[in-house]
Amino acid sequence: MPLLKQIAEQLRDADNFLVLAHVSPDGDALGSMLAMGELLDALGKKVVLFNESGIPRRFEWLTPKREILTRLPEEEPDNLIVLDCGSAERAGELIAPWLKTKKVFNIDHHLGNPMFGTLNWVEQRASSVGEMVGMLARKLGVPLVGLLGEYVYLALISDTGDFCFNNTRPETLEMAAEILRLGLLPGPFHEQKQSTGKLSQLQMRGTVLQQARLYADGQISLICFTRELFEQTGTGPEDTEGLVNTVLYVNGVQVAISLREEEQGIKFSLRSKSSTNVQTVAFRFGGGGHRNAAGGTLLMDMEQAKATMIQAVTEELGKS
Amino acid sequence: MPLLKQIAEQLRDADNFLVLAHVSPDGDALGSMLAMGELLDALGKKVVLFNESGIPRRFEWLTPKREILTRLPEEEPDNLIVLDCGSAERAGELIAPWLKTKKVFNIDHHLGNPMFGTLNWVEQRASSVGEMVGMLARKLGVPLVGLLGEYVYLALISDTGDFCFNNTRPETLEMAAEILRLGLLPGPFHEQKQSTGKLSQLQMRGTVLQQARLYADGQISLICFTRELFEQTGTGPEDTEGLVNTVLYVNGVQVAISLREEEQGIKFSLRSKSSTNVQTVAFRFGGGGHRNAAGGTLLMDMEQAKATMIQAVTEELGKS
Repeated sequence: MPLLKQIAEQLRDADNFLVLAHVSPDGDALGSMLAMGELLDALGKKVVLFNESGIPRRFEWLTPKREILTRLPEEEPDNLIVLDCGSAERAGELIAPWLKTKKVFNIDHHLGNPMFGTLNWVEQRASSVGEMVGMLARKLGVPLVGLLGEYVYLALISDTGDFCFNNTRPETLEMAAEILRLGLLPGPFHEQKQSTGKLSQLQMRGTVLQQARLYADGQISLICFTRELFEQTGTGPEDTEGLVNTVLYVNGVQVAISLREEEQGIKFSLRSKSSTNVQTVAFRFGGGGHRNAAGGTLLMDMEQAKATMIQAVTEELGKS
Repeated sequence: MPLLKQIAEQLRDADNFLVLAHVSPDGDALGSMLAMGELLDALGKKVVLFNESGIPRRFEWLTPKREILTRLPEEEPDNLIVLDCGSAERAGELIAPWLKTKKVFNIDHHLGNPMFGTLNWVEQRASSVGEMVGMLARKLGVPLVGLLGEYVYLALISDTGDFCFNNTRPETLEMAAEILRLGLLPGPFHEQKQSTGKLSQLQMRGTVLQQARLYADGQISLICFTRELFEQTGTGPEDTEGLVNTVLYVNGVQVAISLREEEQGIKFSLRSKSSTNVQTVAFRFGGGGHRNAAGGTLLMDMEQAKATMIQAVTEELGKS
């Protein structure tokens, strides 16, 4: 029996669920968890949502009607639905004992998921786990309307970078079309999602962009976040997200380097355009990642880290 | 007979065409013009593309195989296809005489198009004129594959802000899905489209963000572009595009003001979230625009312009 059908039937047959996604949830983790809550609710099931690290501040605009527990509930559920967790550890420490004793639906799209569940539905081609929840909803005859539609849509746009990344498939856009047809207004939704920034964040990012530099005949761009800058602007590491992509897209740049001062050493993040492999560079320094996005930590000061990374990336560029 | 069918039949019956879009073309103007060229080519027609102001530098990555004339061709075509022009003037001065003597297909999606063509197909609900060209291609049985697909896709994402604006309709996303199914890879396409910036542009934008300020209890955000800044960073007015939206999306901000020093006076641009009308403010100072995006020019210096705009917008906010 196809997995989708099997999962759908077993969801229909069971009664009470705890639904969770990985710690420090992103838009797909949150969206798919909330969507699954709505879906089970529509089917008349008893459902509790759980995330060990809670909702990050930038998602507060979601104001979900259903509470998201950060502690395990007293009443034990029969079934766990674990969403968007590439491994059991990603679900957090609190839930670990239950992962061994309950029936676990492992629903995910990560390459290399070790199939830690009782039932494992791992669809690598899916743009997002939210897209998989959407497929389940269709299978179960629940329309992607209202909050269910909003949450699936949040997951779709989060993991595809507003449908710009290569994991966007025709089916992804068709699901979004269906959600729009059922009433979601994209304009207000995106406005709400984007209006969570603080001026201090923008000012901090402004300073970093102003100090951005090119190296290796314009093939490398580099930005730095110092602790001094965070202190001056009242910002923190969580406000650095995504900025490295901005300097990757400078014409001629093949690799963007972002360096961030930590308590101990310098955290480096590398991003590359499709032709260059930065995972090998990160690996040399004890880090890891993927071909076009990798990182790690250097136990040195900012100036040394800068020189080290520029040299290592320049060598890598020389190979291709 | 429905207009779409009528246009399709008359395109099929005619033989030679000059296709044009508005001057200073954006992604929809260029995309729909290039797509129409491919479509007519697929139908075996003789076709010439024309744009009085040529291709802007930020679209050079398109490297169209077909030349885009900036002068009228010597051989006169029988038919003009005028795309994305809200009025005849938007087509430029060179083409004006021919607009009166040739058969003109006016294909557009602007509210208030004065129907200046021989045949007028004005579809206000269409996200983009590229979407309309895509509809024509379907009607004429030409698949949205290869360059035709790419050009329609460029138009779709340009006018919808990567499917984030409210003009994105289910049909828009379904057309994009069709194009992806026929082979377009969104990742490399967006990478290419975005990789046109220069570091100096980012640095200039960094300085502007760093100096961004809030007023009226955080309801107004303001950024300024001075001629000194352009000179120092080797940038110009064309590099300011879109930055005002970044500061509009600060939490709590209702109106974003952008001020730009010109040869004469200060050009102001206003952006507002859906609830606030900035057209009325622009109108007070001899400018114009729409409810959520308006602008004009103030014949004063930067400091006076700042005080004037902050006061006028604060008054407008007090009304709502």
